[in-house]
Amino acid sequence: MSMHDQRIRQVMEKSSAAGVEQLLLSDPLAIYYLTGVMLHPGERFLGLLLSEGKRPVLFVNELLRFQKELPFLVVWYRDGENILDQVVREIRVKNGTEEKSTLGVDKNFPARFLLPVLFACQNVMFTDGSRYVDDCRAVKDAFEQECMIRSSEINDQTMEQAFSLLHTGITELDLAEAVEKIYRSLGADGLAFSPKPAFGENTGSPHHRPGDRTLKEGDIVRLDIGCTYEHYCSDMTRTCFYRRHVTEEEQRIYQLVREANEAAERAVHPGTALKEIDRTARQIIERGGYGKQFSHRLGHFIGLEDHDAGDVSAQSEETAGAGQIFSIEPGIYLPGKLGIRIEDLVLVTEDGARILNHFPKELQVLG
Amino acid sequence: MSMHDQRIRQVMEKSSAAGVEQLLLSDPLAIYYLTGVMLHPGERFLGLLLSEGKRPVLFVNELLRFQKELPFLVVWYRDGENILDQVVREIRVKNGTEEKSTLGVDKNFPARFLLPVLFACQNVMFTDGSRYVDDCRAVKDAFEQECMIRSSEINDQTMEQAFSLLHTGITELDLAEAVEKIYRSLGADGLAFSPKPAFGENTGSPHHRPGDRTLKEGDIVRLDIGCTYEHYCSDMTRTCFYRRHVTEEEQRIYQLVREANEAAERAVHPGTALKEIDRTARQIIERGGYGKQFSHRLGHFIGLEDHDAGDVSAQSEETAGAGQIFSIEPGIYLPGKLGIRIEDLVLVTEDGARILNHFPKELQVLG
Repeated sequence: MSMHDQRIRQVMEKSSAAGVEQLLLSDPLAIYYLTGVMLHPGERFLGLLLSEGKRPVLFVNELLRFQKELPFLVVWYRDGENILDQVVREIRVKNGTEEKSTLGVDKNFPARFLLPVLFACQNVMFTDGSRYVDDCRAVKDAFEQECMIRSSEINDQTMEQAFSLLHTGITELDLAEAVEKIYRSLGADGLAFSPKPAFGENTGSPHHRPGDRTLKEGDIVRLDIGCTYEHYCSDMTRTCFYRRHVTEEEQRIYQLVREANEAAERAVHPGTALKEIDRTARQIIERGGYGKQFSHRLGHFIGLEDHDAGDVSAQSEETAGAGQIFSIEPGIYLPGKLGIRIEDLVLVTEDGARILNHFPKELQVLG
Repeated sequence: MSMHDQRIRQVMEKSSAAGVEQLLLSDPLAIYYLTGVMLHPGERFLGLLLSEGKRPVLFVNELLRFQKELPFLVVWYRDGENILDQVVREIRVKNGTEEKSTLGVDKNFPARFLLPVLFACQNVMFTDGSRYVDDCRAVKDAFEQECMIRSSEINDQTMEQAFSLLHTGITELDLAEAVEKIYRSLGADGLAFSPKPAFGENTGSPHHRPGDRTLKEGDIVRLDIGCTYEHYCSDMTRTCFYRRHVTEEEQRIYQLVREANEAAERAVHPGTALKEIDRTARQIIERGGYGKQFSHRLGHFIGLEDHDAGDVSAQSEETAGAGQIFSIEPGIYLPGKLGIRIEDLVLVTEDGARILNHFPKELQVLG
């Protein structure tokens, strides 16, 4: 059985166990995960219908022709054809009886496709069925782990090269551009997200978008970057100080964030509640007096997407399991003034955790 | 009344006339269009509820704090709060009676937000209400036209600079990277889409994604590029020949495509059926014997998105109207061999059309 057939079987086992007999997926990454074919449908419909005991059906526009042979029924359609009628027909083949059955769609299934199918299938109960795919995607198999490790290696090297480029007058956007170039030279196949450098007071916002702000002596520099390798994402943040004395307050904040990061990473073991890992980091920052300034969750799952389903937060109800990969990224932000974040990816192993990033976390004054 | 208030009024007039009393929008670009605030919610919920005779309600995560004062009820929420309960409450405030009312959601409204709201509002008829926003967005006001014109000027200059960079050994990805750099130097604020250069046999696919293919003497080069200026997109394609004699077949194909492009552009007037414009181009290519090799629609609407709602195809039921902007992009593709496409943007004016691209269309042998 191929890797992809196995994944489909796993997904259907989970969904069947929950009473969801069919899944209709539209997310190109979910479809890539289950088929090995990466399709970019743009605004066109793309769907994969999985039904208990039936061959999967892939609905795809003929403009997206691909080479790979799939053990599926592939329904090609042309622009202008009403493909949703055919989707409804395939759902009905399964649900010919009057009995009510349940169909899971994925979380981003777009309303323009969902509403017509939903209204045409009065006998079908619709539900968000993403979790059955997402729970499988959360646990990386050996191939996926390899890709994630390599992606983070490239990210480590890129961080080092990017920091070496800091000089007075470079803009945030210049640095973002340089990061993209380094990624390409190191063999990354794309970006996990647009590089997010922040200089000086801009670091005070956790989600700053880079602009024309130039680097000045005395600035804090935060660099949050991630690439993809074989479609798998990396994601790391480091914060440094550009050419100046670091104040006592900054040292205290930096060390708190670093301590929170490292303590949380040490807390990662299979079976640990994810909310406990969040708690470990948050308590350190709260005790340091900056609880309110750590305004986001500790981390997020990552894989084919930079933000895969699942987070590491006070609200998480799950426990860590071997094969999961997520970020650990505590931060403290004083709006309009400064912000410090330190982020790594960790892979949960059978007996602990492996940190995928190796770029140093010591407080550094560069330039 | 501000530009944005006016747009909201127009949208609500259209939707009320169709019996849709409320609209719940989630598309960040639609929300930008109606508020002037560009928000990037990622996987978090963002919603704008428009109701007849009521103040608009904007639901937004507090991580996305913005400065602009809006004449709205702004409902801030934190991660972990169930914001959809509040959305349902606001919908119900309007629909307190037992009478069935209609709510339009936008076309990409994600299932994970739609299904809970839909099941909680049993008294509400849900429908795809995108068209009320999209029909307004299709007709560009003066400010939008300015932005689109400037965006296409930058695109013209970029095409010229990019073609001047062609040399033996450059890869498609190198050229894509160079295009991004040129855009930035010319003041574009982003990409409408990743630049799509295709070399040689790769041009045979209309949607080729650039790779490591290097340019060789004798290659066809097709360059399909677009940037954004003040968030508004440009989009243009040109095809040239790199260092060689052009065969008779290629000349014939090139001239057919060019003739189709120019005839279709001449056919653009307010009141002309869009399918007629498609027909004009398609007939020329069919008569030339390549009808089957022109495998896509003639064009698409464009604005805040590269592919705005609305197309110029045999299926289009609309007529051209002043203020609309769409692409005219006939192409002929011989898979695995060659493909030629010539694309401009056109603005429908009161008495005809204004072509927004000025880069020459003569057959060019470069290098």
